[in-house]
Amino acid sequence: MQEKVTDRDNALFEAGIKLGALYHQFTGSPVNLNTVSSLEKAIQESISVQPYVEIISVKIDRDMLKSKLSSEFGYSELQGPMLKVKITVKYGSAKVNVGMEYDSELNYPLMRIEEIEELSV
Amino acid sequence: MQEKVTDRDNALFEAGIKLGALYHQFTGSPVNLNTVSSLEKAIQESISVQPYVEIISVKIDRDMLKSKLSSEFGYSELQGPMLKVKITVKYGSAKVNVGMEYDSELNYPLMRIEEIEELSV
Amino acid sequence: MQEKVTDRDNALFEAGIKLGALYHQFTGSPVNLNTVSSLEKAIQESISVQPYVEIISVKIDRDMLKSKLSSEFGYSELQGPMLKVKITVKYGSAKVNVGMEYDSELNYPLMRIEEIEELSV
Amino acid sequence: MQEKVTDRDNALFEAGIKLGALYHQFTGSPVNLNTVSSLEKAIQESISVQPYVEIISVKIDRDMLKSKLSSEFGYSELQGPMLKVKITVKYGSAKVNVGMEYDSELNYPLMRIEEIEELSV
Repeated sequence: MQEKVTDRDNALFEAGIKLGALYHQFTGSPVNLNTVSSLEKAIQESISVQPYVEIISVKIDRDMLKSKLSSEFGYSELQGPMLKVKITVKYGSAKVNVGMEYDSELNYPLMRIEEIEELSV
Repeated sequence: MQEKVTDRDNALFEAGIKLGALYHQFTGSPVNLNTVSSLEKAIQESISVQPYVEIISVKIDRDMLKSKLSSEFGYSELQGPMLKVKITVKYGSAKVNVGMEYDSELNYPLMRIEEIEELSV
Repeated sequence: MQEKVTDRDNALFEAGIKLGALYHQFTGSPVNLNTVSSLEKAIQESISVQPYVEIISVKIDRDMLKSKLSSEFGYSELQGPMLKVKITVKYGSAKVNVGMEYDSELNYPLMRIEEIEELSV
Repeated sequence: MQEKVTDRDNALFEAGIKLGALYHQFTGSPVNLNTVSSLEKAIQESISVQPYVEIISVKIDRDMLKSKLSSEFGYSELQGPMLKVKITVKYGSAKVNVGMEYDSELNYPLMRIEEIEELSV
């Protein structure tokens, strides 16, 4: 049966777009321990300008970065597993929290829905 | 009030991830009229390997591409408005169709939910 | 006739790598007038960690950005023509300055060699 | 002392641009063993349209890809070390061969100049 598209549907769709965009825009960026803060900040601010983003927090894992620095050249690339991201998207009467975090069991940077709130209107 | 996360929620979230990923991975790729087919095919196949993708179709608008070719160098970059994408994502008992297409009124490559189906289980 | 590879050759090769990397890593990033500074800074710092980079300056053209902001959503993507970049690469006894800047006649973000210096050794 | 820019200089600069562009445009693309051929072909054709490229060959290492497939989801991302690239650039009277290949000692996808030829004019 075909369903009517709700605010909740759109909020989740939009939240997914932001995580997919963030990941594929910024992974691969050259980074070291001196520049990791400016990259974090730029990613956070960049994705914050997209429609329906209310709050966004981006953290890059310093320990993982440190372990990946090239011994020859002293830098690495931003890799998906280094990222810890939380985004709150609001679309109409729906507000959702989503996140991305490295799952060490799956060895995979997992994106997931953390909370869905339907605001009373 | 906090809500339980359903298959439908996850299907829409996953569908958003795919569109955001596709857009930010592949826009910017150098392309001309001779190479547009291989780029289309590669984008389609690349995103098809991601989790929960059932069907994906990627079209690059030849007329728009033609109008953007550098007169000096004979190529362009893949730009968001050139893309027409349809993706079907299935997550558990939910199946959703989403798409991206250039909206000439908004002058924006708009991503949207096209259909939501909850399969009887 | 086959030639010996000199420091000068390597300096120019490395300088090209940096410009190609910068362009294809960061174009497409969502940006508006409030976030343009952090993006500029992050790009500059990111590419600065790559081997042989001595100095790098990255400027994003605010006027061009302003003219490209979506009227509906209030942001744009970083586009090649918005970028003005200068990089100094030093490889052994050779130092080169290269740059990228929008060429309005060609309607193309042109990358070019600006200066080559062979240091006395 | 400041030097005159030669065809050889430009050929090496342009060759570097292509490798940097290729790397940062396409690494991160989702890929598995069924889709690796279309990605290889698209990368090769995409970079071939850029100015001064005469020949380009792109290979993705199947064994390395296989070893990186997510056990949960059956795909990986294109990573720099998987790439083996050869590009011939011709600029005026100069022709250069450059390449990128994983260096297992450095644990780094190394880009390097392989051959420089100055054509008699």
